[in-house]
Amino acid sequence: MTSHPLLEAITRGAPLVRRRAMAKAITLLESTRPDHRAQADALLTELLPHTGRALRLGISGVPGVGKSTFIEALGIYLIGQGLKVAVLAIDPSSSVSGGSILGDKTRMERLSMQENAYIRPSPSGGTLGGVAEKTRESLLVCEAAGYDVVIVETVGVGQSETAVHGMTDMFCVLQLPNAGDDLQAIKKGVMELADLVVINKADIDAAAATRAQAQITSSLRLLGFHGNPEHDPHNAAQWRPRVIQTSALQHQGMEDFWAVVCEFRQMQTANGRLAARREKQALAWMWERIDFGLKQAFRAHPQVRALLPQMQADVAAGRIAASTAARNLLAAQSG
Amino acid sequence: MTSHPLLEAITRGAPLVRRRAMAKAITLLESTRPDHRAQADALLTELLPHTGRALRLGISGVPGVGKSTFIEALGIYLIGQGLKVAVLAIDPSSSVSGGSILGDKTRMERLSMQENAYIRPSPSGGTLGGVAEKTRESLLVCEAAGYDVVIVETVGVGQSETAVHGMTDMFCVLQLPNAGDDLQAIKKGVMELADLVVINKADIDAAAATRAQAQITSSLRLLGFHGNPEHDPHNAAQWRPRVIQTSALQHQGMEDFWAVVCEFRQMQTANGRLAARREKQALAWMWERIDFGLKQAFRAHPQVRALLPQMQADVAAGRIAASTAARNLLAAQSG
Repeated sequence: MTSHPLLEAITRGAPLVRRRAMAKAITLLESTRPDHRAQADALLTELLPHTGRALRLGISGVPGVGKSTFIEALGIYLIGQGLKVAVLAIDPSSSVSGGSILGDKTRMERLSMQENAYIRPSPSGGTLGGVAEKTRESLLVCEAAGYDVVIVETVGVGQSETAVHGMTDMFCVLQLPNAGDDLQAIKKGVMELADLVVINKADIDAAAATRAQAQITSSLRLLGFHGNPEHDPHNAAQWRPRVIQTSALQHQGMEDFWAVVCEFRQMQTANGRLAARREKQALAWMWERIDFGLKQAFRAHPQVRALLPQMQADVAAGRIAASTAARNLLAAQSG
Repeated sequence: MTSHPLLEAITRGAPLVRRRAMAKAITLLESTRPDHRAQADALLTELLPHTGRALRLGISGVPGVGKSTFIEALGIYLIGQGLKVAVLAIDPSSSVSGGSILGDKTRMERLSMQENAYIRPSPSGGTLGGVAEKTRESLLVCEAAGYDVVIVETVGVGQSETAVHGMTDMFCVLQLPNAGDDLQAIKKGVMELADLVVINKADIDAAAATRAQAQITSSLRLLGFHGNPEHDPHNAAQWRPRVIQTSALQHQGMEDFWAVVCEFRQMQTANGRLAARREKQALAWMWERIDFGLKQAFRAHPQVRALLPQMQADVAAGRIAASTAARNLLAAQSG
C-alpha cells in the first residue's frame, strides 16, 4: 500500500509546501464527494500516528467579547515563545450565512501574516455535527503538520461550545467585565464547561472586572461543577476552574493566561486526565457520528418518510402515545 | 374494533375495581413479552383521550433531603383539599438493586392507606430510558383513572432528573438548608431544570434555611437559566424559578408550596407554555425511543458486533479517526 501523496508534504514539507498541502488536505476532508471521502479517510488514518502532540485549546465567548483580538494577541505571544499556532473555528451560523467568524482573514491581520501561524475559517454549510466533524479532522491535520497549539474558536451561541469542548484539552470562556449585569454567556450553559474563564477588556473598567472575577469565582464554586466530573472540587489532584483578567487589546495578560494553560496541561498530564479526556472524546465522537448516520438513514427510509408526518401529528395532538409511535416507525423501517 | 377490557375499569370503575385495573394495566405496560407489548400499545391508545387533565409534578432531591416525608405530607394535604394523588418514581439504582426508592410502601405508610392515593414503586431493571418509558406510560394510566395530581419522584443522582423533567409540567428540587456548605444536588446540573426549589427541613436551622434561600435565589438569577428558554428572566409573562422553605416533618409549608404550584400552572396555562411543553415532551420522547431503537438494532447487527470491538480499540488508541470508524461501522450494518 502506497501512502497518500499529501502525507509527506504535511509532515515533512518545507513551510510553504506544508501549508499548501494542509489546505489541500482540509479541502479534501470538507468535500462531500464519496470518492474524496474515501481518500480523506485513508489520509486521516495515515496522519494519525503524527498527531496528538499539540495542545488543543477551545475558546468561546459572545460576540463583542473580543475573541479575535484575544486570539491574535495570544497567537503572537506564543509565536514569540517559539511555538507554532493554528486557529480553527466552528461557527454555528456558517451553515446559514456561509461563514461569519474567521471568514474574513483580515480580522486577524497581524497573526495571519506570521509564518508560524495557520488560520482556517469555519467550514460552512451542513449541520453543526457535520461542521464539527470537519473541524476535528482539520485539527488532526494541523497536529500532523507540527503545530504546537491548535486553537478552536467558537461564538458563544447555540450548541457549538459543547462541540468545541468535546474536541479540546482545555476549554476557555471569555467574558466581559460586566458579567453580573447582563447574563451573557452564563445563561447559555457554557460556564459549567469552562476550565478557565477570562475576563477580557479588563482595562475598560478595572473595578467591574474585579467584581466580575469574584462573582464568577464564587458562582463557579457554588454552581459550576455541573455534570463535569473532571471538576470535582474535593479532589486536590484535579483541576478547579480558574478566573483571570486580561486586556487583549493592550496585549496584557497573555503571559498569565499561558501560565494557567501550562499549569492545567501539566496537572492533567500528571493525573492522567488529558489522555482519558482525549480517549473519551474520540469514542464519543465515533458514537455521535454513528447516531447521526443512523438517524439520517432512518429519516431517508421511504416507509418512514411516508409514515412520519402522520405519527408526529398524532403524537403532538395526543392521539397516540409517543412510545407507540416510535415502535410503529421503527417497524416501518425494518420492514 | 372492541375496546380493551381494562379501559372501562380504569376510566369508570368503582374505586377498588379501578385500582386493580390500574395495577394490571401498569404490569402489562412493564411486560417485555411482545404480545403484551402489542396489547399495551392498544390500551395506551385507547386511554389517551382520557388523559391530560392532571398536573404532572416532578420532585427530585438527594437522599436524606426528606422526599418521602415531603411527598407524604403534600399528598395528605392535597387529599384534604379533595384531590386524588398518584405517586410514581424513577429510581436509577433500581436497574441494579431491583428498586430502592418507593420499593417499600411502608415508607409512605399514612399516604398509602388513603383511598384517594395511588403509589407505585419504580419499575426495576433495564436502562434509564426503559424505566422512564414505563413511568411515562404509567403516568397516562393514572391520568385516565382520574388522578388530579401525578407526582413523579426521583432521587438526585445520575440522569434521572432529566427524564423526570421531560415528563412533568413542573419540576421541583428539594434542598437541605445547608445548601451553600456542601454542593448537594447543585453540582449535578439539576438546578437549571428547577421551576421551584424547596428548602426542606427548614425547622432544623431557620437561619441556615434563610441563608440558603437567599443564596440559591441569587445563584438562580445569575446562573440558573441555562438552556431553559422557559426561564427567560426578561419576559414578565414567563415563569421565574422560585425558592421557598418547608418543614415537611412538621407538615409546614404545604399550603405555600401548593399556592406556588397553582400560580405556576395558571401562568403556564395562560401563556400557552404548559401545552407547548407537553407537546415538545411527547415529540422528544418519540425521538428518544426511536434513537434508542436504532442504536439497539445497530449494536445487535452481526456485522457490527463483529467489527465494533476492534474499531473501539483502534479509536481509543488513536490508530483510526473516530469519523472513519463510524463510517466503517455504518457500512458494516448496511452492507
